[in-house]
Amino acid sequence: MKRVGIVGGGQLARMLAMAGRRLGIRCEVLDPAERPCAASVARHLRGDFDDLQALDHLVEDCSVATFDFENVAVGPLAHLSQRMPVRPPPKALAVAQDRLEEKRFISELNIPVADFLAIDRREDLDAAVDRLGLPCLIKTRRFGYDGKGQWKLRERADCDAVWNALQGTPAIAEAWVPFKRELSLIVVRDARADHRLYPLTENHHVEGILCYSLAPAAADDALRLEAERLAFRLADALDYVGVLAIELFEMDGHLMVNEIAPRVHNSGHWTIEGAHCSQFENHLRAVTDLPLGDASARGYTLMLNVVGQWPQREALLACAGVNIHDYEKSAREGRKIGHLTVCADSVEELALRSRALLTAAGRPALWENLQPRIKALQGQR
Amino acid sequence: MKRVGIVGGGQLARMLAMAGRRLGIRCEVLDPAERPCAASVARHLRGDFDDLQALDHLVEDCSVATFDFENVAVGPLAHLSQRMPVRPPPKALAVAQDRLEEKRFISELNIPVADFLAIDRREDLDAAVDRLGLPCLIKTRRFGYDGKGQWKLRERADCDAVWNALQGTPAIAEAWVPFKRELSLIVVRDARADHRLYPLTENHHVEGILCYSLAPAAADDALRLEAERLAFRLADALDYVGVLAIELFEMDGHLMVNEIAPRVHNSGHWTIEGAHCSQFENHLRAVTDLPLGDASARGYTLMLNVVGQWPQREALLACAGVNIHDYEKSAREGRKIGHLTVCADSVEELALRSRALLTAAGRPALWENLQPRIKALQGQR
Repeated sequence: MKRVGIVGGGQLARMLAMAGRRLGIRCEVLDPAERPCAASVARHLRGDFDDLQALDHLVEDCSVATFDFENVAVGPLAHLSQRMPVRPPPKALAVAQDRLEEKRFISELNIPVADFLAIDRREDLDAAVDRLGLPCLIKTRRFGYDGKGQWKLRERADCDAVWNALQGTPAIAEAWVPFKRELSLIVVRDARADHRLYPLTENHHVEGILCYSLAPAAADDALRLEAERLAFRLADALDYVGVLAIELFEMDGHLMVNEIAPRVHNSGHWTIEGAHCSQFENHLRAVTDLPLGDASARGYTLMLNVVGQWPQREALLACAGVNIHDYEKSAREGRKIGHLTVCADSVEELALRSRALLTAAGRPALWENLQPRIKALQGQR
Repeated sequence: MKRVGIVGGGQLARMLAMAGRRLGIRCEVLDPAERPCAASVARHLRGDFDDLQALDHLVEDCSVATFDFENVAVGPLAHLSQRMPVRPPPKALAVAQDRLEEKRFISELNIPVADFLAIDRREDLDAAVDRLGLPCLIKTRRFGYDGKGQWKLRERADCDAVWNALQGTPAIAEAWVPFKRELSLIVVRDARADHRLYPLTENHHVEGILCYSLAPAAADDALRLEAERLAFRLADALDYVGVLAIELFEMDGHLMVNEIAPRVHNSGHWTIEGAHCSQFENHLRAVTDLPLGDASARGYTLMLNVVGQWPQREALLACAGVNIHDYEKSAREGRKIGHLTVCADSVEELALRSRALLTAAGRPALWENLQPRIKALQGQR
């Protein structure tokens, strides 16, 4: 029986471990919390992510290590990688956790990204305004997630306030991208350079947090081909093993990379019910050298995040085709504590079921946002 | 957070607990084994199934109790039911665990069963041969499963040998049924008498153990209607709450009940990937008074049991659309240690994928048995 060590024990580790249970792959999670949410389905090793002694335990117990979030320090993982395979490679983590490195890496592959500029000194902010125009975005290079560590520069006079907020943290300025849609792409690659690509997913964020995903996204062949080439180029350049998530902007029928995440991703949660083999199972298959699974979609799926607190369960379960994913985390404002999916065999059925779900989830107003996207799917067949 | 106590900690409890984890319903299993296979995903209370002290713990920890196999003694469960809801009702268990009671109960509802006769004395065997003809089946009234405790009486001269084998155990004689197909039906009913019915499933047994299930089975409207009426009548008569499995024989386009199982059932394992809401989730929904889920099929599914030992995993996972369900049980001859499913959107795809799966599983000869059944599905559209 293979055992996979996971640095981090949150919901991503939990869903990996649950996929592993079925497959006969046991997971062990390293997490400093007393009872992280993955602990109910995996062995829990309590310790900090950079605790070298704890990492030594992973080496003893497991045959391969992976991680469930990208703010793990690269140093300890690089240290670990001298003693056991660490997948994805720490290099991919290093690139993904620094917005400046990430943008440089992607643009060197001739893949479009927003214009960017390093912000190290106060005057760099003025240079950014001059070169990128207004509005533009200022983001800390590291440790940002769910919209945290980001500011929108609306006018030159905002520079002082943003500079004060940064408090000397290295940052990056990015040009404002007037995108038409936010898409994402999940690719899985194994050590033999075999790939599987999930269909393009359409995402909607609210205040920097993913609100819902719709999959497969409406897309013509040209867009799909562009996405595929871009995903394979990125994964190959990183000598990647595991699931890689790529957040994209669509503009005028072309794609631009927003950011990459070297792990299973919230915008791929729909794959548990919506694809033949989920992103979680495929990540485990890739890191343990098992053949990759079928990443094609089964019908149409809407994924809705549960943030802060749970809607009434009875109402949710009364909706046809709804699946509840409870992470067994305590309720807290702004915290992702679960997600919901609804699957359908046809676009028409997805429309009916999604609308019922949004109502049951207490989010009926989201329908206005979702409806045109579902309509676009109808138009495409 | 609701907690469900499960008497028994085998693979059925394990799959119930895994469905519960997602739903936010925690399970606690009572099992005498040191580490039953459900213990890796549920809290484990070690104790015999009739250990009154252990059952008291279930009352303290849980809001409802259920069971994962039908050979639990009715007495302790009836005792438990005075202090907390036990679902399905112990009465259903009492009926299902005694083949004589079961046959009487079903035939009193005017639902066809094989002709039968109680066997308490040696001369009853001769009476059975006289009335039921040859061959006929002799089965112990209780504790039979997977073909154990059964004999085929081929000629009158076999009576002595069977009588010796019985060693005075109360038994039943059943007429030989020259069935055309073995089918099964999974129905879920809640306390408000709401029902959901999974599509008819076609089963193939080898040496008394389920080998594979194909779902949905080819069936015309008349057969489906007959199945539906029979399932609802049985569930209602038992005032049933939870999943009830009904094993059927098809003869000349009509159905006869072989036996019922008051629990989730091996022939419903395909529902994890093959239906919108699995039998495991629907059982939990029913016993915790949550709305029932959509029991309709998603495409076509083949379920193949893994008995004794695992085929090579790499070969299995190299087949498109295959899902591995490893129960984390040690290999042992004749023991169910896992199951495989393969899903497809069309019958043609199911044929291709099933054949590949059988080959990878080291069972290529099964294709001859499966192929005509898949052909029948093609014919029906």
